[in-house]
Amino acid sequence: MTLSLHAASVPVFAQLLGGLSDVLAKAAAHATERKIEPDALLQSRLFPDMFPLLRQVQIACDFAKSVSARLAGAEVPAWEDSEKTFDELQARIRRTLDFIAGLDAGAFEGAAGREIVLRPGTPKERRLDGQAYLLAYGLPQFFFHVTTSYALLRHGGVEIGKRDFMGKY
Amino acid sequence: MTLSLHAASVPVFAQLLGGLSDVLAKAAAHATERKIEPDALLQSRLFPDMFPLLRQVQIACDFAKSVSARLAGAEVPAWEDSEKTFDELQARIRRTLDFIAGLDAGAFEGAAGREIVLRPGTPKERRLDGQAYLLAYGLPQFFFHVTTSYALLRHGGVEIGKRDFMGKY
Repeated sequence: MTLSLHAASVPVFAQLLGGLSDVLAKAAAHATERKIEPDALLQSRLFPDMFPLLRQVQIACDFAKSVSARLAGAEVPAWEDSEKTFDELQARIRRTLDFIAGLDAGAFEGAAGREIVLRPGTPKERRLDGQAYLLAYGLPQFFFHVTTSYALLRHGGVEIGKRDFMGKY
Repeated sequence: MTLSLHAASVPVFAQLLGGLSDVLAKAAAHATERKIEPDALLQSRLFPDMFPLLRQVQIACDFAKSVSARLAGAEVPAWEDSEKTFDELQARIRRTLDFIAGLDAGAFEGAAGREIVLRPGTPKERRLDGQAYLLAYGLPQFFFHVTTSYALLRHGGVEIGKRDFMGKY
């Protein structure tokens, strides 16, 4: 028995983005209860030259969107990074979930052998087949930003646990 | 085209554990250069009730080992958590890499439908088939601890980047 590229991407992204949504909801409630300025969390960083929480969440959504779209052979929609609040981040996660749920699972067949070009036309251009693109690049990148978002909020004192991170499975 | 359970587990764990090894090597060198007590990094936590770096690395190795073994239908070896230094963590990563490399890829066939029991005999017992065990549980857990290890060191001022985290692909 083997896995489809769809099974190894869209449901994984959906589960973890659901967890991220719950984590962010707890963070927003925590900020309200403790009279913490939301930006104290949204703009928090683990180190000064790392991205703040808000950007980590945007990038996690971007990887879910772009990896799923490329595996499906669909165009990657370009979305502005205009979010400034917890509510706007929730909307971005919902938009991402809707987008990946709307991709045709059948279109992922054949993706494993399809060539995908990273950073085309740049000195860092890289060509990977669909399988390597998902397993060696897309999943690690996605998990990096979801986990870093969680780590930032945990470090900031929000009462969340790994069960929240994991989402529903 | 589809993925084997082996392709979606062992090479992913190996790539990221290779990255983790590089990250820890940079951390150890950083501590030596700056005359930082290694335990200041090894025992560092992002929040007081989270596990310190040393334990995060042990757990990352444990998920790579146990998820791979269970998918292969092999016994999960029990290893003591006796590491106290960067060198000992490197040895644990090597031992993990050797163990998963030694599993028979053919033994992963049929794993997707095999039932795997989490926390057997406890109130949190959970039964998953091999596919869900890897995609919904094993990979997220593994990535959580690898990324948290990186985040801890980044937060501690070690000069590492996402390229180190990603490993070789």
